[in-house]
Amino acid sequence: MLKDHERLDYVLNEEIKIIQSPEIFSFSMDAILLAKFAYLPLKRGRVLDLCTGNGVIPFLLAQRTKATIEGVEIQDKVFDMAQRSLALNKLEDQVKFYRMDIKNAPSKLGHGRYDVVTCNPPYMPVTTGEKHHNEHFAIARHEIYCELEDVIHISSQLVRPGGKVALVHRPSRLIDIVTFMRAYRLEPKRVRFIHPKSEKEANMVLIEALKDGKPELTTLSPLIVYDENDQYTEALKEIYYG
Amino acid sequence: MLKDHERLDYVLNEEIKIIQSPEIFSFSMDAILLAKFAYLPLKRGRVLDLCTGNGVIPFLLAQRTKATIEGVEIQDKVFDMAQRSLALNKLEDQVKFYRMDIKNAPSKLGHGRYDVVTCNPPYMPVTTGEKHHNEHFAIARHEIYCELEDVIHISSQLVRPGGKVALVHRPSRLIDIVTFMRAYRLEPKRVRFIHPKSEKEANMVLIEALKDGKPELTTLSPLIVYDENDQYTEALKEIYYG
Repeated sequence: MLKDHERLDYVLNEEIKIIQSPEIFSFSMDAILLAKFAYLPLKRGRVLDLCTGNGVIPFLLAQRTKATIEGVEIQDKVFDMAQRSLALNKLEDQVKFYRMDIKNAPSKLGHGRYDVVTCNPPYMPVTTGEKHHNEHFAIARHEIYCELEDVIHISSQLVRPGGKVALVHRPSRLIDIVTFMRAYRLEPKRVRFIHPKSEKEANMVLIEALKDGKPELTTLSPLIVYDENDQYTEALKEIYYG
Repeated sequence: MLKDHERLDYVLNEEIKIIQSPEIFSFSMDAILLAKFAYLPLKRGRVLDLCTGNGVIPFLLAQRTKATIEGVEIQDKVFDMAQRSLALNKLEDQVKFYRMDIKNAPSKLGHGRYDVVTCNPPYMPVTTGEKHHNEHFAIARHEIYCELEDVIHISSQLVRPGGKVALVHRPSRLIDIVTFMRAYRLEPKRVRFIHPKSEKEANMVLIEALKDGKPELTTLSPLIVYDENDQYTEALKEIYYG
């Protein structure tokens, strides 16, 4: 079941098994926080995760809803890991992955057909910083196959009016994010900042927009990751371990 | 010195005296937080406070800089209180108030002549909620004489390229704020959210923009007002009492 350099990890009190490879793709805290942050319909509906990687977000979302969940990933090897994890978690009836460039998703999967779209996109512009020598890392981290504007434009095409789009990103890009969201009829409604410690600047932001929503933003309580003794805070443990 | 219904209040360990009137205008925590948040040149330069009310922000800024500080207020009675407080604090050499509609400020005070512009504007759209029966309260709280877009447009006209504009506002309006800022060449660079308690949503936001700045936002540590025992937090006491 596991290929070279792959390992099997357990998430959420071992409820979910995920095939990962330190050399190709491992999910991070960002994905877990997004999967807990996003609004979900409880019983029915269609949810789509863009740039899904090894599928950790769809697997986590499946713990919270009976809706069908789909994921789109461009990289062959990572898509293959997601497919094998899917079987391992016996979620084939609820979760489905497509190996696809997200730019083709609206024409192949349909416009306005999703209730919720989530995405943990690459954070770094191609022009910024040195690209990772490992191609798989570079694709997951840099905006090689999808720039921020693409992600937001495509999410807006996929979600229905009144549906929701939730992203996790770097707070340094927040003004670009909300500007693109408004340009594509996604009104930011809920935001949560993640701070490594209570006295530190935010290093992550969770943001949810409503397609064709009215302007009124709610800024949730800050999520602090580590307490003064460098231990996970209770709030973070609650998210990680329920 | 004091007129009917007025009282003399002391701010910042009694360093500043402010004439207030519960019936006309009293400053609030917002003003103090903005005065401590805004970037200031230390030795020289020109600072302007729009919608200055009884002048509390200029008086507080004067504790932090030797730059000249000007304030603009439209209401006669409130302007008169600011003028008397100015004499009381012996700050006539550094601080100057104008009774003026902010819409006339760029033509009367000059375009691009200020290093820093601050503003604690009315928060509530005229169309929202019931207006206060007291005219003075209504003007200070509702966007009767200046709407959010006016405040931002006028601030941008007054500040020099490379200068800074700092506002305090309600976080529910944040997306409008940053959209107007970008529309008027003010790039948001620094933001701080104020939460009444650590587990509560933000109820205030401090935001600073750079005229013609490059996009890159810093989200400062959250400022929590009350601790779990409903006492001011150390961080808030530090701001209030130095």
